Amino acid sequence: PDWDIVDEAGIKQLQRVFRFRNFVEALVFTNRVADLAEEEGHHPAILLEFGKATVRWWTHKIHGLHRNDFIMAARTDALYNS
Amino acid sequence: PDWDIVDEAGIKQLQRVFRFRNFVEALVFTNRVADLAEEEGHHPAILLEFGKATVRWWTHKIHGLHRNDFIMAARTDALYNS
Repeated sequence: PDWDIVDEAGIKQLQRVFRFRNFVEALVFTNRVADLAEEEGHHPAILLEFGKATVRWWTHKIHGLHRNDFIMAARTDALYNS
Repeated sequence: PDWDIVDEAGIKQLQRVFRFRNFVEALVFTNRVADLAEEEGHHPAILLEFGKATVRWWTHKIHGLHRNDFIMAARTDALYNS
């Protein structure tokens, strides 16, 4: 699977690393994911680096994973693939 | 000091956490730092989260800190303060 379940300070999160050719492409993707997050009022952590963006989804209120996080992960994949 | 020297997988890096009122303000700052990085051809890692952006500078070629990283840190502060 493309997404891993990681433990971040005791909180389970969905994480995927997305690869790009350079910094700007990773930045553009970061903005697209951020715009989606803002639309939905559900905010991931996004680590932007040269040639990659690592996205983590979790539900702050429950300190863990909710069905909605898996939906957001799938929507993030759709942004990447489009 | 606002910047810490952290060890990330054996590589010394300059790190600072910048706080914001919400996700969008952290995103705007991320983009400003990213634009500076692209202009200079020197790329940090930026962790974007709700209400904060954590910036890390280091020099990839030498796997550590160079004088230029301290300059970029100061320029990042200037963006934050402006």
